[in-house]
Amino acid sequence: MRCDRVWRNARLATLAPGLPGLGEIDRGVVAAQNGQIAWAGAEAAAPAFEAAETIDCEGRWITPGLIDPHTHLVHGGDRAHEFELRLTGASYEEIARAGGGIVSTMAATRAASEDELVAQALPRLDALIAEGATTIEIKSGYGLSLEHELKSLRAARRLGEVRPVTIATTFLGAHALPPEFKDDADSYVDLVCREMIPAVAAEGLADAVDAFCEGIGFDVEQTRRVFEAAKAHGLPVKLHAEQLSNLHGAALAAGFGALSADHLEHLDEAGIAAMAKAGTVATLLPGAYYFVRETKPPPVEALRAAGVPIALATDCNPGTSPLTSLLLSLNMAATLFRLTVDECLAGVTREAARALGRQSDIGTIEAGKVCDLAIWDIERPAELVYRMGFNPLHTRVWRGL
Amino acid sequence: MRCDRVWRNARLATLAPGLPGLGEIDRGVVAAQNGQIAWAGAEAAAPAFEAAETIDCEGRWITPGLIDPHTHLVHGGDRAHEFELRLTGASYEEIARAGGGIVSTMAATRAASEDELVAQALPRLDALIAEGATTIEIKSGYGLSLEHELKSLRAARRLGEVRPVTIATTFLGAHALPPEFKDDADSYVDLVCREMIPAVAAEGLADAVDAFCEGIGFDVEQTRRVFEAAKAHGLPVKLHAEQLSNLHGAALAAGFGALSADHLEHLDEAGIAAMAKAGTVATLLPGAYYFVRETKPPPVEALRAAGVPIALATDCNPGTSPLTSLLLSLNMAATLFRLTVDECLAGVTREAARALGRQSDIGTIEAGKVCDLAIWDIERPAELVYRMGFNPLHTRVWRGL
Ligand SMILES: [Zn+2]
Ligand SMILES: [Zn+2]
Repeated sequence: MRCDRVWRNARLATLAPGLPGLGEIDRGVVAAQNGQIAWAGAEAAAPAFEAAETIDCEGRWITPGLIDPHTHLVHGGDRAHEFELRLTGASYEEIARAGGGIVSTMAATRAASEDELVAQALPRLDALIAEGATTIEIKSGYGLSLEHELKSLRAARRLGEVRPVTIATTFLGAHALPPEFKDDADSYVDLVCREMIPAVAAEGLADAVDAFCEGIGFDVEQTRRVFEAAKAHGLPVKLHAEQLSNLHGAALAAGFGALSADHLEHLDEAGIAAMAKAGTVATLLPGAYYFVRETKPPPVEALRAAGVPIALATDCNPGTSPLTSLLLSLNMAATLFRLTVDECLAGVTREAARALGRQSDIGTIEAGKVCDLAIWDIERPAELVYRMGFNPLHTRVWRGL
Repeated sequence: MRCDRVWRNARLATLAPGLPGLGEIDRGVVAAQNGQIAWAGAEAAAPAFEAAETIDCEGRWITPGLIDPHTHLVHGGDRAHEFELRLTGASYEEIARAGGGIVSTMAATRAASEDELVAQALPRLDALIAEGATTIEIKSGYGLSLEHELKSLRAARRLGEVRPVTIATTFLGAHALPPEFKDDADSYVDLVCREMIPAVAAEGLADAVDAFCEGIGFDVEQTRRVFEAAKAHGLPVKLHAEQLSNLHGAALAAGFGALSADHLEHLDEAGIAAMAKAGTVATLLPGAYYFVRETKPPPVEALRAAGVPIALATDCNPGTSPLTSLLLSLNMAATLFRLTVDECLAGVTREAARALGRQSDIGTIEAGKVCDLAIWDIERPAELVYRMGFNPLHTRVWRGL
């Protein structure tokens, strides 16, 4: 078999759905051709390769390249000062006076040019890439006007041009109510549905549409309107649901065949059943749970029992999860949510791909998929979940290189 | 003033005890000569320098080099598989059968040569160094026999020769009871006091002596004997105290003028008063608190009210805190223990130096101290605490270089 590159003498965690556990192959080989996986499996079963380059992995582990399926990586400024003030016991009024809250991120995002948004996001993106991430979802949602939402999505797309990484973009116009629409959320939702979504779709700027369905966000009826507009423009949907309370957003999302419902601490049995039926992925965000000191974990056992796929993400954002380590998300998911090692690793590979609707392209090491790999200096995959603040990445491979 | 190097155009967080907050200086200068700080302060007040090298910091922040005052960095093996088994609900017997628990780390440590212990510790050490750590304490305590405790301390000393970092070593023979002494802790303590401490002192292998005073460790009377032997050999003491229960170990330690009492989740008012009187530092270990899912935080407000100095450390160890990020410890101390940003940063600089008895040498940016610095790509010091899994270190300076 002719190919560009062969990785030999590796231990594979293929995550292939047919295999038990992580789909482990003890003495494995991966071959890439034109950026895709041409062959993957056991050395003993491998064909003869005619490869331009052969790499001896010296027994290292190879997993699929990691996927972060929920981030707000593009935003202006940070909220470090707000964090500092909170620790000194400052009241919400004092924090608001000092320029805190999501409105401060909106203001900084609006004030930044597209180039500045790219420049500010790059260190965060590079931190994720340094740990083996090959696909990263990025939401808009801090512009909150047509101009600044489009600018944010363009900045997200640009990140995929300036770095060797696949960016999936999500339009999250219905993230928060901008001050211009104070006390008139319905009019803002009109704007989202009638102007923003059509413009985003026309420019091909988003791969999906998301909303924040919550008491402090948008209600179920408003969310439904956003979803209907998305569907009308052929865009799949996802939802920030049941983070702080149970508005039954996950069930609504499932009804629209959502790719994922995310957060889910307050998800109930009906929501779980609806998600299971629709095949909607539960994307858990342990970094936000930890950072806001939530005490109610998502219903992991019930999700498991119902067969709902579970993905994990950083939720990287300046207000509630200033987290740029997918590996740390794994440790938090295990430590705080009691996910198993296999669930954690599937959550940032196979199931994360599903949460982006890309399960036929990425997320496992199987012939025909894009050759996105992470090669690790570890003795067993559990080390990726067990350690905190340690990066054992040896090499990252994106599209075969 | 003649000097080797000058860092100009910097913002300084000097941590100098005379100054409020972080001892911030807006337009600051640091000058090094022979590895020491020759001058530090405001540009406006600086003398004329005749420097071999001048570095423009372009407005970056400089803090003292970070100090990790409590680690178990030298050990054989890891406990990733035990972690994995626990997540699948394995019982203690199953984990013991699979070779889990501290005895497994003891066995791996005994089986490793000094060279192997150095090699295994290096990636962990490098992770700490990469975040700006310039001084790291390392304990023995997994050898649990004269030969293997000495070997561990020698490995720790060696780490300070193969990397540009200051290592402080602590003898922790009374960490756990080795199987040879099952049901005879007193005889093991005899060995610690009569053979190990004299040998460690004779070889100059330890800068302090520590013990694990706990129901699953050693009782107060045994701890007292260890402290007396340490004192007889001129070694200062510290203690793992009040982590799982209140045995009044911190008060005992304070009675011996201990440098620090560490963990302290179950510390009571009498212990706090004794520590305050003795000047014993409270070293908090949020990584262990997080990893073992402890729910009772240490009494931070009472420590504050009593004026007990608070230090922070990774407690890097394979069983209860596989953590190699001091920055993540800061975030955990703020998020989980509600330490302020200033307390967090003092905890890994000025107060960490005090926990090692080195406050006259390191921990602040002041003339006469060793020139250990961390230079950061940040806009405000709070970013070092606020972010999770992000390393904004620009340059680390150890002994002026
Ligand atoms: Zn989010
Ligand atoms: Zn310890």
